[in-house]
Amino acid sequence: MSLTNFFYPDSVAVIGASREKEKVGHQVLASIIEGGYEGDVFPVNPGAEELEGLKCYPSVGEIDSTPDLAVIVLPAKLVPSVMEQCARQRIKAAVIISAGFKEVGDEGQRLEKQVVKIARRGNMRIIGPNCLGLLVPGHKFNASFGGELPEPGEIAYISQSGALLTSILDMAKSNDVGFSKLVSVGNKADVDELDILESFGSDSETQVIAGYLESIDDGNSFARLSEKISVEKPILLIKSGRTASGAKAASSHTGSLSGSETAYECLFKRSGVIRCNSIIEQFALAQVFAYQPLPQGERVAVITNAGGPGIMATDAVEEQGLTFAQLSQKTMDALRSELPSASNVNNPVDVLGDALSDRYHFALKTLLGDPGVDTVVVLLTPQSMTDCEGTAKAIADASQSVPEKPIFACFMGGDKVSKAVDLLRKARIPNFDSPLGAISAAKTVVDYVRWKQRPQRVVKLFPVHRNKVEKIINRYQRRKQREISEMDSKEILEAYGFVTPKGSIATTAEQAANMADQIGYPVVLKIWSPDILHKSDVGGVKLGLVNRQQVMDAFDLMMLRVPRKEPEAQIRGVLVQEMCREGREVILGMQRDPNFGPLMMFGMGGIFVEVMKDVAFYLAPLTAEEARMMLKSTRTFQMLKGARGEEAVDINAIAEGLQRLSQLATEFPQIEELDINPYVVMREGVTPIAVDARMSVNVEGDK
Amino acid sequence: MSLTNFFYPDSVAVIGASREKEKVGHQVLASIIEGGYEGDVFPVNPGAEELEGLKCYPSVGEIDSTPDLAVIVLPAKLVPSVMEQCARQRIKAAVIISAGFKEVGDEGQRLEKQVVKIARRGNMRIIGPNCLGLLVPGHKFNASFGGELPEPGEIAYISQSGALLTSILDMAKSNDVGFSKLVSVGNKADVDELDILESFGSDSETQVIAGYLESIDDGNSFARLSEKISVEKPILLIKSGRTASGAKAASSHTGSLSGSETAYECLFKRSGVIRCNSIIEQFALAQVFAYQPLPQGERVAVITNAGGPGIMATDAVEEQGLTFAQLSQKTMDALRSELPSASNVNNPVDVLGDALSDRYHFALKTLLGDPGVDTVVVLLTPQSMTDCEGTAKAIADASQSVPEKPIFACFMGGDKVSKAVDLLRKARIPNFDSPLGAISAAKTVVDYVRWKQRPQRVVKLFPVHRNKVEKIINRYQRRKQREISEMDSKEILEAYGFVTPKGSIATTAEQAANMADQIGYPVVLKIWSPDILHKSDVGGVKLGLVNRQQVMDAFDLMMLRVPRKEPEAQIRGVLVQEMCREGREVILGMQRDPNFGPLMMFGMGGIFVEVMKDVAFYLAPLTAEEARMMLKSTRTFQMLKGARGEEAVDINAIAEGLQRLSQLATEFPQIEELDINPYVVMREGVTPIAVDARMSVNVEGDK
Repeated sequence: MSLTNFFYPDSVAVIGASREKEKVGHQVLASIIEGGYEGDVFPVNPGAEELEGLKCYPSVGEIDSTPDLAVIVLPAKLVPSVMEQCARQRIKAAVIISAGFKEVGDEGQRLEKQVVKIARRGNMRIIGPNCLGLLVPGHKFNASFGGELPEPGEIAYISQSGALLTSILDMAKSNDVGFSKLVSVGNKADVDELDILESFGSDSETQVIAGYLESIDDGNSFARLSEKISVEKPILLIKSGRTASGAKAASSHTGSLSGSETAYECLFKRSGVIRCNSIIEQFALAQVFAYQPLPQGERVAVITNAGGPGIMATDAVEEQGLTFAQLSQKTMDALRSELPSASNVNNPVDVLGDALSDRYHFALKTLLGDPGVDTVVVLLTPQSMTDCEGTAKAIADASQSVPEKPIFACFMGGDKVSKAVDLLRKARIPNFDSPLGAISAAKTVVDYVRWKQRPQRVVKLFPVHRNKVEKIINRYQRRKQREISEMDSKEILEAYGFVTPKGSIATTAEQAANMADQIGYPVVLKIWSPDILHKSDVGGVKLGLVNRQQVMDAFDLMMLRVPRKEPEAQIRGVLVQEMCREGREVILGMQRDPNFGPLMMFGMGGIFVEVMKDVAFYLAPLTAEEARMMLKSTRTFQMLKGARGEEAVDINAIAEGLQRLSQLATEFPQIEELDINPYVVMREGVTPIAVDARMSVNVEGDK
Repeated sequence: MSLTNFFYPDSVAVIGASREKEKVGHQVLASIIEGGYEGDVFPVNPGAEELEGLKCYPSVGEIDSTPDLAVIVLPAKLVPSVMEQCARQRIKAAVIISAGFKEVGDEGQRLEKQVVKIARRGNMRIIGPNCLGLLVPGHKFNASFGGELPEPGEIAYISQSGALLTSILDMAKSNDVGFSKLVSVGNKADVDELDILESFGSDSETQVIAGYLESIDDGNSFARLSEKISVEKPILLIKSGRTASGAKAASSHTGSLSGSETAYECLFKRSGVIRCNSIIEQFALAQVFAYQPLPQGERVAVITNAGGPGIMATDAVEEQGLTFAQLSQKTMDALRSELPSASNVNNPVDVLGDALSDRYHFALKTLLGDPGVDTVVVLLTPQSMTDCEGTAKAIADASQSVPEKPIFACFMGGDKVSKAVDLLRKARIPNFDSPLGAISAAKTVVDYVRWKQRPQRVVKLFPVHRNKVEKIINRYQRRKQREISEMDSKEILEAYGFVTPKGSIATTAEQAANMADQIGYPVVLKIWSPDILHKSDVGGVKLGLVNRQQVMDAFDLMMLRVPRKEPEAQIRGVLVQEMCREGREVILGMQRDPNFGPLMMFGMGGIFVEVMKDVAFYLAPLTAEEARMMLKSTRTFQMLKGARGEEAVDINAIAEGLQRLSQLATEFPQIEELDINPYVVMREGVTPIAVDARMSVNVEGDK
């Protein structure tokens, strides 16, 4: 869907245009005219003949052509009838600036629905209502009351807060930030963040997308779209309302550890969206992405004219997890031959306090030429000999001659560096007020590059027994029973390829016999202990038991004899089933977010999972890489891969478990949450066991 | 020690003053004169009759009075002889700006030592060498080559980087930040950070102390002094060189988890020092502390003219761990009676987009009057009706009439808000460019207030057997043996009141008997299992065993009978000693930092302590409150206090263990590192057991 009529109208009707300066109807008309809009403008107001030197129309129906766009600035209750007129006039796009709709309550909500209905019938699109309008600097088009048109630029902005847009426009002007488009989406009655994002994505004038959002209405579509767009154009979002969701009841570990914030974090991580905490940070990053090339890697070199800032940059590189570039011998020789002998020719390169621009220029060009350097950060303090402006020019020159490597500047000071900072800005070299600021930005860019280079997402589909699961779930839903019993939960898991210890652990001989009855004979009894590796050696395995008596005898003998041979072993009971072994306990889980779908969880298992919080989340469906990434992001992973002499467990088997669970959650949207805890994992080649599981489904009557 | 001669000299000799503009000797003299210094200035240069209109002296000896201060700007090799002249002239203070000393290598080091020797002999103090000088705006005294004298103000600054001071001075000017004193300490040959800190602490013109340090040479003295001063004056430090210490070999868990960064963090936490990451952040906080009162508590109220920034502030309050103020009914009624009906009279209070200054003024005064509000944050976006400057004035007025509560502003924009921001600055209302920035600053202030209100530090001294420990340690040191054996480590711990399971766990009857032999009869045997609470009930306790045979019989019977009654219990063996019970495993540890002394550690015990990293550090000596605070800062604490139906353990007993260990580490500086892992803790009233311990001492030949 194209929003061309909104962004590039050849003619626009301003319905509700006014002569009174304090009225929004005046401000919008004045903004359009003052912005230098070159298309036709039709003010509509039955009470005026002429406005701002333009012929004024009593109604939109009186205009003898069809405007591409209507901008409506009327009291809410008048909007439906005006929309009818617009539809009759075959206008295809309307920006409804007027407030008084959904945001004021039920009556407004009704009015808003009515307006949307009229638009749908007339095949019209709406931006708003309750918005600030939109601005397209390159088209000299300012249909807003937010402020002056900024300079044209590569950054497109979407804001769910109109008022914030006034701050953004004002800050942009002071910071020389240019925009391709700015849209205030208001109540998102029709055009929403997805439409805007899609149009920004395909917009040739836009290279970077930024935005302020309070809600994302269709999480899955947003995930798909933003992931597609992020590959080409970085998306920088402020997402507020972190705490809005409040507490919710959760019956699983996974549920109690997740939440809508977790879902947003997962969404952004997967789709490469870069989250910002403030508009200042967002502007800085937007400029970095718009003006500088992407680095090839994470190796940073630093040039400084003072030790202190050099040390601060070194600290920041370490803290941010970037790599300090190891300069080549050739680079160091070159630096040594040209710089004064007291200079440091290792990274960070210190050109000394009396450095003029020539030393900076030489050092910068030399570092840019080193194949082991991906990004250069140039620090400057305004000492008595320092040539701030000359150095800015030297950086600009070096950047032009080696345009393929990013350069960040950090000129630390006030008046003494301000002209130099202006020069840097004109040369599109991002400048930061602290070494940490520059290095943090470099880190964000490196993370984005890593995300872009991630392996292609291939979600493996395992052969499973969907019918079996379908039947069990239907049974519970028919009975309006949310909680699936442990037995049935394990049936479901088995249908998806998990191994479960049917009947789990018996602690008395009679219990063991009952379990064996349930499972059906013959059964195997195995002592259940994480401390015993070779069960047969200690009499801990009995195969082929065919009746109750045999099971009870085997149980009693096992419980008598095994502790004699292994007095230190932790014995939890006896496992009655086909196969099972000792191992480590982890948790696999899923919590369905109402907006984003299944959130998969992996973590340290056991009863303290909520306390230790050593868990990782990701959105389903999971690829093998994503599952492994989840594992690696926990501290538990260090144990699993065999720390401190412990045997490593089968990492790929755990990842496969997560993928299977992800498939189950994806194929059965009825499942609300589930935990496998503990999921007992063993050495490579041994199938893990889902020892305990809980699962719940949604039932009729749920919202 | 007073540094009065440095900060308030009535006369100053500039030795090495020069006519040549690019020379530092000229810049320093010019700075003194241009700063408007009102005392006598004696330029010293044998080659000039007159400099800058002042009589020039061929040597300091020719001056017919004794200057209070000498500023030396000569090549390094000339400095010793000039210092001799100064001493003869009875000059008591010298700022040596010249470089070429310790920082350039051995020869410079030698020269520096020589200079210090001369000073000591002459009872002189030195700032520098290799520094930028010092500035005292209130005294119109600028003995530096760093830039113009800033405005007088409440902030004192110490910088270990001269070049950084040029940035600081330049930024200060652009940001209207005033200073009481600024000192570049250079090589710290004599006057060091402690001297400066002490003089800032007792300086009536200084209310806030800020600084940039790369090293702290005497950690213990710094800790004591900064803690004393912080109570009166907040200390804001940038401490760089985080990564300088590099890797070190450590034989304990504690050692491998600590490091000099950990020590600095502990030092700052204890002494109330506020760590900053950038000069911009430091300036903002310095102004907050200098200009605004301290809040009574952590309850924040927000006023906004737009929803978006209000939500951003709400998020920030939650993230930073502050409390959103619950407004009183009276406050809400008052707001409702005066504000438009669409306004939100809950916190955050929304005065709406068309608010002029009167609504802001009313809302602000009302919130300041609510006893449930400790800090007010005022947000503003420059919408078309917004009166930015009027609102700034309204805030200034409200602040004057309720001076006891802090107000932070966040006027978001560029040119439209810049005049208002100037007004705020003049009224000493801190302004931030994002809601998160304002709330983060509020959090820092609240943390400082909490620190100030901490209970008085009372370090309990336990009665212990020092002689016993002394003897053991001496024995190891004589043998030059670093690692104390487990047995001796436990002896030491016992001397400090710890209970250890002598001979620990036996897994065979013969082993048990051997242990009993070692311990001496009678002994107690107890089944060693974390799963069995009532040992007697299951035959798990045998008292008063008096010989090998009894011990072996008791062992075999216990290992036979207990598993029958408790088949699920994890049995680790049998404990041979006086008393011991089941419990949870934690780790207590100590690592001696060469600079800061003993760093105490608490954490989750077991072999995975390094993997889980759920540990807390603090500097010895520990008070009971500090020990409990360490416990509480770990996730493990949630388990210990009885999460998920598990019985709580004796928290105070763990805290006491930490205090005893702290006393041991404090009284025996020979101990380099130690771990008690696991330290087995049980329910209240049961003494914990140091099951395993390792300890090492320094031996001759160590550096």
